[in-house]
Amino acid sequence: MYDVLILGGGPAGLTAGIYAARSNLKVLIIEKGMPGGQMQNTLGIENYPGIKSISGAELSDKMHQQVLEVGAEFVVGNVTKVELEGELKKVYVGDTEYTGKTVILATGAHPRYLDVPGEKEFAGMGVSYCATCDGAFYRNRDIVVVGGGDSAVEESVYLTQFAKTVKIVHRRDTLNAQPILQERAFKNEKIEFIWNSEVVEILGDKVVTGVKIRNRETNEITELPVQGVFIYIGFIPNTTYLKETNLLNEWGYLITDNRMRTTIPGVFGAGDMRDTPLRQIITAASDGAIAAISAYNYIQDQK
Amino acid sequence: MYDVLILGGGPAGLTAGIYAARSNLKVLIIEKGMPGGQMQNTLGIENYPGIKSISGAELSDKMHQQVLEVGAEFVVGNVTKVELEGELKKVYVGDTEYTGKTVILATGAHPRYLDVPGEKEFAGMGVSYCATCDGAFYRNRDIVVVGGGDSAVEESVYLTQFAKTVKIVHRRDTLNAQPILQERAFKNEKIEFIWNSEVVEILGDKVVTGVKIRNRETNEITELPVQGVFIYIGFIPNTTYLKETNLLNEWGYLITDNRMRTTIPGVFGAGDMRDTPLRQIITAASDGAIAAISAYNYIQDQK
Repeated sequence: MYDVLILGGGPAGLTAGIYAARSNLKVLIIEKGMPGGQMQNTLGIENYPGIKSISGAELSDKMHQQVLEVGAEFVVGNVTKVELEGELKKVYVGDTEYTGKTVILATGAHPRYLDVPGEKEFAGMGVSYCATCDGAFYRNRDIVVVGGGDSAVEESVYLTQFAKTVKIVHRRDTLNAQPILQERAFKNEKIEFIWNSEVVEILGDKVVTGVKIRNRETNEITELPVQGVFIYIGFIPNTTYLKETNLLNEWGYLITDNRMRTTIPGVFGAGDMRDTPLRQIITAASDGAIAAISAYNYIQDQK
Repeated sequence: MYDVLILGGGPAGLTAGIYAARSNLKVLIIEKGMPGGQMQNTLGIENYPGIKSISGAELSDKMHQQVLEVGAEFVVGNVTKVELEGELKKVYVGDTEYTGKTVILATGAHPRYLDVPGEKEFAGMGVSYCATCDGAFYRNRDIVVVGGGDSAVEESVYLTQFAKTVKIVHRRDTLNAQPILQERAFKNEKIEFIWNSEVVEILGDKVVTGVKIRNRETNEITELPVQGVFIYIGFIPNTTYLKETNLLNEWGYLITDNRMRTTIPGVFGAGDMRDTPLRQIITAASDGAIAAISAYNYIQDQK
């Protein structure tokens, strides 16, 4: 029986673990893969305050060590079922049942992948899903952005602060983004559009050197030399296991208040899975700290 | 003319600077003292995710270096006047006027001091204003908590997770805290009360070894051997310069939405000065990141 079951071992879950264990709570973190979550796929992190430059793997490892040292337990496993209502919360990893007084949901989110050759190979080596994180690495470079929605268009404008050129590759001949964002992109001299087209392969040799683009009307394939490929075709919260609850908004993100409380007493949420204005390591970690203190207060109130 | 004027160089302001400068904005940070703010007075930090243990001075220095490296400017000075309404924001440091398209308010807060001999000398060496930060350092120690309000009582209960004994020293013979908090304290076996009394001196030799307590009715002075003194007699947001605005709540804290926007367009807030459920380095830094991205978006919208 745990005080806090934390689902997810990214920066939100690990920080929740640090704060909860330091409050003398009995903590279990359940993570499906490597500790660190999406950080693990990030090559270089230069916007985490206090650490000038670090690899995602190393920052993951540091947070993981830190949470173990303060006494939290960590298991690797896929959560298959949750029972969140009632005084005791139950979480199942296959046949194994874990019981806790509180649950902190911190299972994160992931970008929708393009699923073309080269994408996985060059992730973090020219392929990126986060302009805020990686934009500054592309000063004076040529970039392709894939997508036509709000994020694709907004982040393209953001990337022109650094890049020499930004080419937006979109499957159709009109954008889906809000008119105000479209306008901003159309009048930006650094942005060009490649309509009715899709990136079918990402080329490179250690790092990205170009993309193969197919015109969907003519089927013609052209090669474009670029150093960066930013993919913005959707972002998916890892919340399928909560589909039957009332905890999610229409896009599948977890709804919480500013104390990270969901509508179920004793159930809290933190990090990228949350309906939140910014998804960064620092914001996820902050969420985790707040969720842990809220869980502590909830347990005190039950006494 | 700056894109962003940041008032305050604690973790909120410095992180806002990192995020704003990495978005290619022209940034000025104005700090009245040493970079780092309250962190500077913190001896050991063990709850900042990713850094196992660090002194406040060192973490301050790391964040300061990081923000300078991404191109933000930093000046030391006391803000004497602000003009936040209108398209261009003005901030005065004495006779010097700084102009910006946006302002991020991050001037922090400070604990109300007891103002007795020994308090300053032993700050961080047994004298603390933050149980969440420092509680875990006091396992099996004897502690005095000064105060009788919500924070004093709530944090006393929190400290019993670690401490051998917690004695609450209060000036009157009843607590001001909410009844539910009082009840929790009264039934906690580790907590004792010293009524009608005040701490008149903190004793020690490098670290705290005890306190001198005066009974306000008998004037009797007694010495109590303790290793920790937690002072909870109030927390004061550094917002006097905003008194004439409508930006503050009744306790003087800055009101923002979850994007860190105040009610004045182009004016954002971050960190301890904010009306927020948890005041930690990690939460202040997260606020700063969000405020910076909101300032960036605001500037884009003005174009």
